[in-house]
Amino acid sequence: MRNIALKLRYDGTAYHGWQVQRPGVPTVGATLEAALSRVCGHEVKATGCGRTDAGVHALSYCAGFKTDCTIPVPRMPLAFNTALPDDISVLDACEELGDFNAILSCEKKEYIYKLSNTRIRDPFLQNRACFYPGALDYKRMSAACEKFVGTHDFAAVRSVGSETKSTVRTVFWCNIERAGDVYTMSVCADGFLYNMVRAIMGTVVWCGAGKIKPDDIPALLERGERRLAGPTMPPGGLYMSRVWYPGAAGLMFK
Amino acid sequence: MRNIALKLRYDGTAYHGWQVQRPGVPTVGATLEAALSRVCGHEVKATGCGRTDAGVHALSYCAGFKTDCTIPVPRMPLAFNTALPDDISVLDACEELGDFNAILSCEKKEYIYKLSNTRIRDPFLQNRACFYPGALDYKRMSAACEKFVGTHDFAAVRSVGSETKSTVRTVFWCNIERAGDVYTMSVCADGFLYNMVRAIMGTVVWCGAGKIKPDDIPALLERGERRLAGPTMPPGGLYMSRVWYPGAAGLMFK
Repeated sequence: MRNIALKLRYDGTAYHGWQVQRPGVPTVGATLEAALSRVCGHEVKATGCGRTDAGVHALSYCAGFKTDCTIPVPRMPLAFNTALPDDISVLDACEELGDFNAILSCEKKEYIYKLSNTRIRDPFLQNRACFYPGALDYKRMSAACEKFVGTHDFAAVRSVGSETKSTVRTVFWCNIERAGDVYTMSVCADGFLYNMVRAIMGTVVWCGAGKIKPDDIPALLERGERRLAGPTMPPGGLYMSRVWYPGAAGLMFK
Repeated sequence: MRNIALKLRYDGTAYHGWQVQRPGVPTVGATLEAALSRVCGHEVKATGCGRTDAGVHALSYCAGFKTDCTIPVPRMPLAFNTALPDDISVLDACEELGDFNAILSCEKKEYIYKLSNTRIRDPFLQNRACFYPGALDYKRMSAACEKFVGTHDFAAVRSVGSETKSTVRTVFWCNIERAGDVYTMSVCADGFLYNMVRAIMGTVVWCGAGKIKPDDIPALLERGERRLAGPTMPPGGLYMSRVWYPGAAGLMFK
């Protein structure tokens, strides 16, 4: 069996996340599997690099699958895209020689979160950025982001509902940029807890709105109580933006 | 009765155009009228500055209506936006003193058309730009645009189905810009025939693809036969981008 890694981009608005669920609930994973199965001529099971939630997007996402089909790798993107809806695209493909697994082989991931800080909602950012009309202090938000960098127990900024052995993760960078009225936060880590980026963004927004101080964040993480941190921000502003792998997939995502 | 002009922005993907049609067919105009009626407390009829088609967007659109309500003009955008869905926003409002009519008072309008020229479709441009994967020559497209400038009979680039006394219009400018893989054509005229911008864009794309020459365009307009010009491009790439008025609305759209 050939072990294939795909680079995907998708607008998650119409989907109940990545994870294959029960029939009748459209997910990115199930939609991809159906398309791959149709083109490959046999039933395909795909593994995603992470479980994005309902309404969450991906600029760059890795999905792996095994196949006996003989389609040459360079022809795969166009071949699969003909079977995919317009809100999911295969950008690139490569063949892995070793024990590649889209989730287990992933070294680190980056998410971005977009927030539109205008008095009036921009219709073209609907489901693409979180609309926040209140006053925000960029410097405080930037200082808040820095507090999340490093190895911490992130229990305070995760939603319950997923099983994990440990809530300790290492955040390699967390920063926020402003372009006009749009704030974009980037967070890179070795792994993410459920809703972690959305809760970090909620806490950063609380700092920007003056509800808490950036210096409160270390103690808040220490305490580990979800209720002390900011709200889980809506899914439409969240994008998986980059993934890192060793081997062939690593080159593809470089 | 107060005569109010609104500056709107909308994502037209979910709508069957501006024009109020039969019940059950969602249109931007009917959605706006329902919201205005609810907030103003009486039935409101709105006049739009142009009949955008199904799936066509507006970055800046003018709608006028008359009301007895006492809402101060500066509070109107937020008041109306609370009653509107997220894909339609009132950006601004003003009160007209004279005989303002959103369509009859309009001096000129500008549309833009966006085309994404990539081998692989970008999911985030779905319904926002026309996807065109073939090779295009920017210089030829730019030369083609120039041929539409001036006072001409534009019968060759309109779809039948609308009644107009004359098919002569004056195009003040028509040009195309390229930013990365996205081409944006801007056309400003004293008026537009049905599907005129989409057919101009189709003709410009034909020039870019080498199917006709820019120098063929004057004769093509002269002949006035729709079949000689390029195709009517899909609606998702089209945006009403600017409108010009005298008086208070003129200042609002400046």
